[in-house]
Amino acid sequence: MRRALELAARGPDTGVNPRVGCVILNANGETLAEGWHRGAGSRHAEVDALSQLAPGLSRGSTVVVTLEPCNHVGRTGPCAVALIDAGVARVIYSVTDPGEHSCGGAKRLHTAGIAVEGGLLADDGETLLGDWLVAARLGRPFITLKWASSLDGRAAAFDGSSRWITGATARLDVHRRRAASDSILVGTGTVLADDPALTARDFAGDLLAGQPIPVVVGRRTLPASAAVFAHPHPPLFFDGLDLPGLLADLHKRAVRTVFIEGGPTVASAFVAAGLVDEYLIYLAPTLIGGPRLALGDIGVETIGEQRRLSIHSLHRLGDDILIVARPQTT
Amino acid sequence: MRRALELAARGPDTGVNPRVGCVILNANGETLAEGWHRGAGSRHAEVDALSQLAPGLSRGSTVVVTLEPCNHVGRTGPCAVALIDAGVARVIYSVTDPGEHSCGGAKRLHTAGIAVEGGLLADDGETLLGDWLVAARLGRPFITLKWASSLDGRAAAFDGSSRWITGATARLDVHRRRAASDSILVGTGTVLADDPALTARDFAGDLLAGQPIPVVVGRRTLPASAAVFAHPHPPLFFDGLDLPGLLADLHKRAVRTVFIEGGPTVASAFVAAGLVDEYLIYLAPTLIGGPRLALGDIGVETIGEQRRLSIHSLHRLGDDILIVARPQTT
Repeated sequence: MRRALELAARGPDTGVNPRVGCVILNANGETLAEGWHRGAGSRHAEVDALSQLAPGLSRGSTVVVTLEPCNHVGRTGPCAVALIDAGVARVIYSVTDPGEHSCGGAKRLHTAGIAVEGGLLADDGETLLGDWLVAARLGRPFITLKWASSLDGRAAAFDGSSRWITGATARLDVHRRRAASDSILVGTGTVLADDPALTARDFAGDLLAGQPIPVVVGRRTLPASAAVFAHPHPPLFFDGLDLPGLLADLHKRAVRTVFIEGGPTVASAFVAAGLVDEYLIYLAPTLIGGPRLALGDIGVETIGEQRRLSIHSLHRLGDDILIVARPQTT
Repeated sequence: MRRALELAARGPDTGVNPRVGCVILNANGETLAEGWHRGAGSRHAEVDALSQLAPGLSRGSTVVVTLEPCNHVGRTGPCAVALIDAGVARVIYSVTDPGEHSCGGAKRLHTAGIAVEGGLLADDGETLLGDWLVAARLGRPFITLKWASSLDGRAAAFDGSSRWITGATARLDVHRRRAASDSILVGTGTVLADDPALTARDFAGDLLAGQPIPVVVGRRTLPASAAVFAHPHPPLFFDGLDLPGLLADLHKRAVRTVFIEGGPTVASAFVAAGLVDEYLIYLAPTLIGGPRLALGDIGVETIGEQRRLSIHSLHRLGDDILIVARPQTT
């Protein structure tokens, strides 16, 4: 399995498809073939490995693969069927396939009389699959909501000015997290108010290696001069707050992580819809008061309806505080 | 000086007067007399010690005292003059007198030809004087503002319900701090909305040893059934937000610490007036949204006017977070 994980890591860590590796062993435990998945449209790891063997050679073999063999017909046929047809005796996999359409491969193999064992080095397998696995389990991208506010929950002063509430260390932390996200999402209001570049930059203002796809939500018209149009990735626009539709669209485009940076209308809509998986709340040691809140109305009428979170971690970033919180699962 | 500090500690740690101790030594360093201050209206420590010596015996002696000898006429004469009249040769003190009317004793002694040395064991002297020293330096009580809110800065849900946002550990921490404060201050709005007892209680609901004097600010009429009327101390009422007048009144009543517990109108008034010395912000891991904020308008129009604080300490209390912050002094 360790070798299969090594092979899997050769695959690209982007896109709609997972990184999967496969090793085929004979009855003596000797390697007959190796394969891995090279990305969307290319052969799955199991088929890649089988393809290197002359017909018949795979009969009675043991297949070690990092992800449960798939059970659906996409651009390739189901791997479970390919393995059954190849006459393999045993399949050992690491991570169970969470896909709505692709799962069930292990059951299908078992029904066909093949010995099946799952969960080997599952932690390593999950780490390797990373965001792909999370998005596959959710059936949508993993959503992080970030805001920066004063200790009294304000994101800006009365006149809308907000540069800068948090310090340089906190802002660099945000850029590092932007770089690690597939996409960054804001409302048209934020584009009009702040004209953000939505790029991930270092302390000198230079672009980092990873750049999130900018996603802009809302009905307001943006000027052609808006900085977002100069982003390395062409921005995606969604003209309303049909959040499930928006997320389904992003999921199809291989966006596995969404980093929401505001403003309050967009943030409140995602919170109210229960669609936030992780909160990053940067608190600056300052008080602002007044009407410009980081979060607006989230549909809580009475205290029993409050949205309880649990604190995942608490950090000091320069003078600021970062609270990482997740929805309470109890 | 250590002996003088021991003597000082015999005095009462409440009221308008400080705890002060005094030792008078002869030229060989042998103790001639000791004294301490027993509270308002009684002799100051220096005079208490001098009173034990026959006339003439104090001539040429060294006086060791924990607080700079006073230079004003109150219910007792100035100690500086008493020491000059007694013919002492040398005065060693710990903490400089911060009083607006009482300071200047050291200078007066020096002018009279007495050797004067200040600052000996000043840290110990300051610790012993505690809140008295802070209030004396401020010329008013030390003011702590506490609020409890969700991570988005809300103190209650839309309908006003707020029990409970923070957990038991945080609430006990608040009660412990109430018990250590001379007074607790709320607005009439809070009394009408929550009917708080304003007592300091333990986890079983029993009264703690120390109880802060309840102070209620505002113009709204309170029902005779309000829980605050059952407080061990009779409540003090102030019908407006003349904060300097209010604080001067409390200072005269020997209130050295004020613990403000809300609501937002009172909290915002103290913040806007720059009268908060310490913030205790209890943040519960929850989101509420909506209009009921812990802090209202504090007169900040643009971001340059924000009230910068510095984080003094950060605590996890059960599921909650306590941020202790102070106004930025730079």
